[in-house]
Amino acid sequence: MAHIKVPEGVPGIRSLVMFRPETGRYLYELAQVLLRNESPLTPAERELIATHVSNRNECMFCMNSHAAAARELFGDKREVVDGVIHDIGSAPLTPKMKALLIIAGKVQINGREVKPEDIAEARKHGAADRDIHDTVLIAATFSMFNRYVDGLASLTPTDPKDYEAMGKRMSTLGYVLPKISDTCTKK
Amino acid sequence: MAHIKVPEGVPGIRSLVMFRPETGRYLYELAQVLLRNESPLTPAERELIATHVSNRNECMFCMNSHAAAARELFGDKREVVDGVIHDIGSAPLTPKMKALLIIAGKVQINGREVKPEDIAEARKHGAADRDIHDTVLIAATFSMFNRYVDGLASLTPTDPKDYEAMGKRMSTLGYVLPKISDTCTKK
Repeated sequence: MAHIKVPEGVPGIRSLVMFRPETGRYLYELAQVLLRNESPLTPAERELIATHVSNRNECMFCMNSHAAAARELFGDKREVVDGVIHDIGSAPLTPKMKALLIIAGKVQINGREVKPEDIAEARKHGAADRDIHDTVLIAATFSMFNRYVDGLASLTPTDPKDYEAMGKRMSTLGYVLPKISDTCTKK
Repeated sequence: MAHIKVPEGVPGIRSLVMFRPETGRYLYELAQVLLRNESPLTPAERELIATHVSNRNECMFCMNSHAAAARELFGDKREVVDGVIHDIGSAPLTPKMKALLIIAGKVQINGREVKPEDIAEARKHGAADRDIHDTVLIAATFSMFNRYVDGLASLTPTDPKDYEAMGKRMSTLGYVLPKISDTCTKK
């Protein structure tokens, strides 16, 4: 049960933004711009960073839902998602994406863990300022979302089918603030 | 030097939102709603939570700037800010505020650290759902801001006078997105 009274049966962050849409509005708008709008990183790559950070924070709701969105967006190359969840060292990643995921993993610990040599390694493989900026901000943002979702003990579904449905929705509609009257189990 | 090319001489998050105002806009709007708009917690109490989390993350820019804002907002009772930075156990806090700061400190580690007994302790001292929600979201949000600021190695001023000026500005004007042309050293 969540630590505060949120709409029943609504999972994860969706229940929290329905409790307080005044802040939820900006959380969803940030997610939409950061994960879907213009970036040198594809939406699939950005969902992979979100999945990696959520996995490291052991936030099962965020990890499973963003992994599902990443699988939809990667299509035929979806095996990279499970590779990253299992071990980024052996995942079928480009050197650039691997360097960016290492930076994201350091941000998950603490921003001060990111060293000039981590940035140099990413640049060596073609990362420019915007790749680095977006990677750090996505990793920082999921350090927030993970703590919001778990810090209030919001509902975490256990049926994989629920996450598949969320993944399809997130990969097609993106991040749209739910209406207060909308109490079905969607993300 | 920052890891990416941001406006020179502009400190902390201000330089990062000038690099990417499309996301910066929502970060500032979230800060404004969360730290200044309607809440059962005063703006001073909310800045104290921001200071506590930034201190635990050792983000010197965020800690010093939000501590300065909290001192301005607490006025005659400003000694509570240094008390919290030094040790929340001996700081001159109400039992409710102490319980909320303990929750914020657990969120700083990981959301799953917040236990039902932490929530029960806060409720015993008068915290309602909104106090708990706002505490968790502020702590989660600063877990993001701290990582964004330090993960990109943005400029951290060392002169205490710079932070005093930021504190005055943040306590009166709140969080207003800087213009791209605005390259003076303000937060």
